Amino acid sequence: MFGITPSARLRPSPFFEATIADGVTAFTTYNHMLMPTSFGHPETEYWRLINGVSMWDVAVERQVQLLGPDAGRLAQILSSRDLTKCHVGQGKYVALCNHAGTLINDPILLKMAEDRYWLSIADSNIWFWARAIAAERKLNVVVSEPDVSPLAVQGPKAGAVVASLFGDWIHELKYFWFKETSVQGIPVAVARSGWSKQGGFELYLLDGSQGTKLWNLVKEAGKPWDIGPGNPNVFERIESGLLSYGGDTDDNTNPFEVRMGKYVDLYVPDDVIGIEALRRIHRTGPVRHQLGVLLEGDEPTALGFLWHSIYKNGVKVGDLTNCAWSYRLKKNIGFALISTQCVRGDTVDVIKDGKSVRGTLCELPFI
Amino acid sequence: MFGITPSARLRPSPFFEATIADGVTAFTTYNHMLMPTSFGHPETEYWRLINGVSMWDVAVERQVQLLGPDAGRLAQILSSRDLTKCHVGQGKYVALCNHAGTLINDPILLKMAEDRYWLSIADSNIWFWARAIAAERKLNVVVSEPDVSPLAVQGPKAGAVVASLFGDWIHELKYFWFKETSVQGIPVAVARSGWSKQGGFELYLLDGSQGTKLWNLVKEAGKPWDIGPGNPNVFERIESGLLSYGGDTDDNTNPFEVRMGKYVDLYVPDDVIGIEALRRIHRTGPVRHQLGVLLEGDEPTALGFLWHSIYKNGVKVGDLTNCAWSYRLKKNIGFALISTQCVRGDTVDVIKDGKSVRGTLCELPFI
Repeated sequence: MFGITPSARLRPSPFFEATIADGVTAFTTYNHMLMPTSFGHPETEYWRLINGVSMWDVAVERQVQLLGPDAGRLAQILSSRDLTKCHVGQGKYVALCNHAGTLINDPILLKMAEDRYWLSIADSNIWFWARAIAAERKLNVVVSEPDVSPLAVQGPKAGAVVASLFGDWIHELKYFWFKETSVQGIPVAVARSGWSKQGGFELYLLDGSQGTKLWNLVKEAGKPWDIGPGNPNVFERIESGLLSYGGDTDDNTNPFEVRMGKYVDLYVPDDVIGIEALRRIHRTGPVRHQLGVLLEGDEPTALGFLWHSIYKNGVKVGDLTNCAWSYRLKKNIGFALISTQCVRGDTVDVIKDGKSVRGTLCELPFI
Repeated sequence: MFGITPSARLRPSPFFEATIADGVTAFTTYNHMLMPTSFGHPETEYWRLINGVSMWDVAVERQVQLLGPDAGRLAQILSSRDLTKCHVGQGKYVALCNHAGTLINDPILLKMAEDRYWLSIADSNIWFWARAIAAERKLNVVVSEPDVSPLAVQGPKAGAVVASLFGDWIHELKYFWFKETSVQGIPVAVARSGWSKQGGFELYLLDGSQGTKLWNLVKEAGKPWDIGPGNPNVFERIESGLLSYGGDTDDNTNPFEVRMGKYVDLYVPDDVIGIEALRRIHRTGPVRHQLGVLLEGDEPTALGFLWHSIYKNGVKVGDLTNCAWSYRLKKNIGFALISTQCVRGDTVDVIKDGKSVRGTLCELPFI
């Protein structure tokens, strides 16, 4: 592994000092910030998420705030999902597309108030995008980055930990709904969400100066359930079929290709960006789709920085966009972004590190 | 130093394998790609740039290509600098601003043809920005990322190395001008440019599959001049007063604050994005400006990931946006983004790692 050089272009999160104290060993960058990717014990961190409870610095899930009389209008213009029935306190997973119907981010949209929305974004610059659209359409809305930094508590025991801090009402929260509250004077929004399928919550810290305090509060509260540090877990997210925008997508990916068609409402108004292109793609059908690949071999492997080509009968048919060892399946698994001519059950060859590895296509999720 | 975890969100450059072979030890991320930041010998790498010739993988300087009948019109709409006299084969340093006059990138604009422009960008997503504007204004132009990856050859002996590969005509190139050519079958555009003040060229590789071949060609050609690997050099760029977009700027920085006023032509047409805001800021005067800071103390220091606050008479007046040891001045130096009330010669206090360090403001560049 190579070192990462400090730069003011790459901001640390409010939980940075706390994660250092807890032994973080590696980072990635995401939205021009540093996100922990390992505390040195990958298998322990995986099983902690599957069987217990794990806490993650996901402050890199930045918020694009839309504030003003036209905030709701801009939110809808940017999103290909119908937001008319979205309530204050509710979140929705949405596909943001450009005018060609290409996916440019897949945030959770949070309706904070009638005139205030947050897009809790994946790794691309939606501030620029939203500001360009707002200004060109002369909307009365201010686009900004508020002081908001999520801390995820994930795993089957996450509810117990979060309830011990905030009360049993958190069990009543529906998926992606949230509530603004505070704990020991620290303002937070508590949401039932998180980038795993093991259940859990995200605590949106609303005061970046209190990161270490919130981290240590959660750590202390979680002790009875053996909480420990972790991070968005590549093994679990692949098993669970969770999409990584920018990792599993390229500059030509539309929502239908990556299992997001159910979040596209083709009847939204014509001024929604990309909707005409999305209707056209829906009519003709996408040329690629996303499937799982079960690879042969019993040795853990990893994808590295690059996609790997997938061949069928000697012809390139797609790409392996991620790859990891499944501790539960005891197989190397990954996602294929692949021709719709290829279907579940097909045998393919993945070219990896100059070698050909046999694989079988399957539906997602794996587990 | 912490490790960086491989991810398909962070692409390696076409020169990645070659830099590994040459001993790269650390990276940063820039435009969602990896850029070498050290080959393990910082002082040697510095003096090689100052006295000899250094070769850098700067493939992260990506190109935003504008192609089509309205390419020139879009280039001007995005740029606050008059482009009417820009010739094919010429490059210009331009300030891209948003509608509020805030700097969003400081690329070199290259006019490749009457209907084709490249923006060789700093570290922010101008593809999204340009596509949003082009689509909203219904311009007939395609915005894309071509297969183009610069390799910089910098230092007083760079001209000799590049001439040995391409011929003596390269000495006739004016600053920021370029010419498309090839070397041993590898297509490149040779430009007189580079992010140092030591002179040099950038070879824009036009075929990403030939990165290792081009790297090794330059390495071989440079042997008589003791060429060696390096990277955009933080020590030299601070001494030379070169701006780092995103490092020395924040979400509220306009060109006048960071010595880019001379690249803003206030008379450009009203449809240029941000020009009305820039005229207003120019009229009232910016509230901050950029100066150098000479810090007391004889021990090398570094800024790390964060800006540091600058105080004068106990009142916060600005931020130290970078900091490095100057091998030539034998001082710690940095840039201040600071109130225009503070001027050259003023004594200030920088709060760094909890300690106060005395400094003196000065003009940029340092050398």
